[in-house]
Amino acid sequence: MATRTMGVGRKRSSAAHLPLGERGDGRFYGQHILSVAQFARTDLEYIFAVAEEMRLMVERVGTFDLLKGKILASLFYEPSTRTSSSFTAAMERLGGSVIPISEVKYSSVAKGESLPDTVRTLECYSDVIVLRHPETGAAATAARYARKPIINAGDGTGEHPTQALLDLFTIREELGRLEGLTVTMLGDLKYGRTVHSLSRLLALYGAKLNYVSPEILRMPPYIVEELGKFGVEQKEYTTLDPVLAETDVLYVTRVQKERFEDLKVYESVKGAFVITPETLKNAKQDMVLMHPLPRVGEISMDVDSDPRAAYFRQMEYGLYVRMALLAMVLGKA
Amino acid sequence: MATRTMGVGRKRSSAAHLPLGERGDGRFYGQHILSVAQFARTDLEYIFAVAEEMRLMVERVGTFDLLKGKILASLFYEPSTRTSSSFTAAMERLGGSVIPISEVKYSSVAKGESLPDTVRTLECYSDVIVLRHPETGAAATAARYARKPIINAGDGTGEHPTQALLDLFTIREELGRLEGLTVTMLGDLKYGRTVHSLSRLLALYGAKLNYVSPEILRMPPYIVEELGKFGVEQKEYTTLDPVLAETDVLYVTRVQKERFEDLKVYESVKGAFVITPETLKNAKQDMVLMHPLPRVGEISMDVDSDPRAAYFRQMEYGLYVRMALLAMVLGKA
Amino acid sequence: MATRTMGVGRKRSSAAHLPLGERGDGRFYGQHILSVAQFARTDLEYIFAVAEEMRLMVERVGTFDLLKGKILASLFYEPSTRTSSSFTAAMERLGGSVIPISEVKYSSVAKGESLPDTVRTLECYSDVIVLRHPETGAAATAARYARKPIINAGDGTGEHPTQALLDLFTIREELGRLEGLTVTMLGDLKYGRTVHSLSRLLALYGAKLNYVSPEILRMPPYIVEELGKFGVEQKEYTTLDPVLAETDVLYVTRVQKERFEDLKVYESVKGAFVITPETLKNAKQDMVLMHPLPRVGEISMDVDSDPRAAYFRQMEYGLYVRMALLAMVLGKA
Repeated sequence: MATRTMGVGRKRSSAAHLPLGERGDGRFYGQHILSVAQFARTDLEYIFAVAEEMRLMVERVGTFDLLKGKILASLFYEPSTRTSSSFTAAMERLGGSVIPISEVKYSSVAKGESLPDTVRTLECYSDVIVLRHPETGAAATAARYARKPIINAGDGTGEHPTQALLDLFTIREELGRLEGLTVTMLGDLKYGRTVHSLSRLLALYGAKLNYVSPEILRMPPYIVEELGKFGVEQKEYTTLDPVLAETDVLYVTRVQKERFEDLKVYESVKGAFVITPETLKNAKQDMVLMHPLPRVGEISMDVDSDPRAAYFRQMEYGLYVRMALLAMVLGKA
Repeated sequence: MATRTMGVGRKRSSAAHLPLGERGDGRFYGQHILSVAQFARTDLEYIFAVAEEMRLMVERVGTFDLLKGKILASLFYEPSTRTSSSFTAAMERLGGSVIPISEVKYSSVAKGESLPDTVRTLECYSDVIVLRHPETGAAATAARYARKPIINAGDGTGEHPTQALLDLFTIREELGRLEGLTVTMLGDLKYGRTVHSLSRLLALYGAKLNYVSPEILRMPPYIVEELGKFGVEQKEYTTLDPVLAETDVLYVTRVQKERFEDLKVYESVKGAFVITPETLKNAKQDMVLMHPLPRVGEISMDVDSDPRAAYFRQMEYGLYVRMALLAMVLGKA
Repeated sequence: MATRTMGVGRKRSSAAHLPLGERGDGRFYGQHILSVAQFARTDLEYIFAVAEEMRLMVERVGTFDLLKGKILASLFYEPSTRTSSSFTAAMERLGGSVIPISEVKYSSVAKGESLPDTVRTLECYSDVIVLRHPETGAAATAARYARKPIINAGDGTGEHPTQALLDLFTIREELGRLEGLTVTMLGDLKYGRTVHSLSRLLALYGAKLNYVSPEILRMPPYIVEELGKFGVEQKEYTTLDPVLAETDVLYVTRVQKERFEDLKVYESVKGAFVITPETLKNAKQDMVLMHPLPRVGEISMDVDSDPRAAYFRQMEYGLYVRMALLAMVLGKA
């Protein structure tokens, strides 16, 4: 399969405010990271190669001063300890510093300041801005006004591109390849932006996708349709059983009680979406079990010691991917 | 005009707990920064010279290790994202570190601890303390007990000296001079400590001051009187029109609806205090348009691209001024 | 007296997840710091020797890069400005970085994540975790799951070992010795985990302990009994008078009004637990007056200038002890 960009990739040029370098060394320098749709396969491979270098360097020497003197403004309009900690660690592992702005209710925004004004103020103090915002499209709005690179750390039900990248990187590191895998997504596939973004990226690698969810939490038709146009093989199920044996990657998400109007329905289905050691008996020996975390019972703690349980390693891969992205947009990769 | 200190300058010696160095190199070392009243013109010129060096160094090399190993305790009893981010960035750009203490309700203060005790604890951990406090005089109280330098980052309706310094530095950098300017202050001149402090500093430079405000938000008589004693030419208006053409610096502040008992009065005047591209047609080509930010409609976003719109550059100048002050009180300027 | 570990020291091996190095240089490397019960006298002497080195280095050069590149995750499930600031300063003074996670209500925990999952996520990003938690035993739970060292910064009414260590280090630095002192503890001895832990450590040094408290806030019988088994001489009083003259160390804690059902009882006793310059007239000239802070009236501010008032120095000693512990568990002492 040749390198290709998905349909939504048309947004790419608007997302990037500086021209993409033709050669690898300046790639993504000064660019915004807004959406998985901005990445072609060659981009992903470049990001992952840099992330792997980061991994090796952390494992060998712990930290290095690649971004010494650089400042990250970490602007979180809604809380996300995991994501903000990961970006903070990524910046610090590279020798850079962080301005944490997490107390939304306290911020100038509380005084009615617009997102563009906040961003244009913060870029006076920093070299790159990581933005988490409850509204879809907020990152793109910020990027329209910013002179410094914006990294989208999740905007509402919109995008969370660094999560999708770390998910894909996890699969690559765990299995050694991305091509032609059977990936089963389990749980709430309707509201989970994680699985939406990941499925789009997997489409670039000829994955076969199984969607296992309660009836009311099925993968949205517009995504199924979008991927269908790219020839992605997709099948839907209500239980894991029929597809577990063929699954290379099992991606679990939480089924929230609150999504169900009829609690009887919830009670009748919830058991089908909990992974136990019993479940794994029928899975491939080298299957990769993933979860974006936090989990609240979807994967039993007994499973943690199974070598296939990759969800904590997934967090670590996230660190390397974010280190790579920060280094890249700051021109130091 | 010879260098002179204003009347309130008598407070100076009490504000400073270490004697002012006679020569520039040790100037402000170990001192508190509490009030604009503590600065004579030679002090301001020294601060601005250092701030300009900071600007050049940031523009050339980004960061440097002047304050490596130094720790700033950032003690904010009330939220101010802009000010705290600016000080954090200033410290980090100089290679120093920050202990952020912004969760007032969580602090030991919530357990009833006095400000002197909190300050004496924090100075065990840090080299300089930046203090934001809702009560007028809090910074002076803290300074009475502290062995390490206190920088006042705003205490109630009292002082916010670093804001006044950055405002003056902005004018200097934008126009290349401070002497003999016509400065028009627009909006809420009654409650804005920003314009109070700035007008006092401008008095040192022979400025002509125009005050444009709704009747109920006029510049307080005690300030008009104080500056009058120093021979400052001051005039009051209710619209911008008569003075716009002669204005070198237009300093806009917000007119808050909440200040008006009669909303009809607010509705009738508010239009007079909004700056649009139309407004700027009659202004000087090299006028400087300033605003302390955040703005909420006082300056239309259409104005942002006008080269006279200096309010985002103002934020950046603030960084350099704060870098200068930190370096100075820590003896590294 | 030979080096001995107290009875509770049996917990030691379970607390430590890596074997104690036989020689000083690797001591505590990779270990958790969970409880004072894990320390024998030789351990304490080693910690204090390192803390003293830290003190000398801070006094001479301010900071150094011993932990450059290392990251501390500061995980506070309940607020404690003093403790978190102290650990942050300790890490920064050693050239390391901090990931602050203090907004409990915002954390993943709010989404129902378990402490083990949070810890296993954070250790992906950091080299050491400092944990403050409202539940007794939380630190031990975290340690069971963590691959990186956990430092207990207080878990409920359980332990706060670094406070006890800094208290003991304060006495050592102020008096030059720990052996055979008369230590009087004053105030709320029932609920104060500080005095519980300190009394256990003092027992290792043959201290004579006086407990002065209101009847309802007496030292818990299980502690008196525990120490009694080790031959510690302990006496209880309701006023300071009978023991002040013989006291080498007076450790004051707060008597909270809320502890009293009958406010009349509170009113009748509270005066007996306030230290004034008058009180100190009858004390030894080289007595050490300590308080864990924050204080709310238990020690009058007039006392602060008395050379015996050691409570602010106590904060500073805390910095050195925490620097020592961080360096030790990270293998850099």
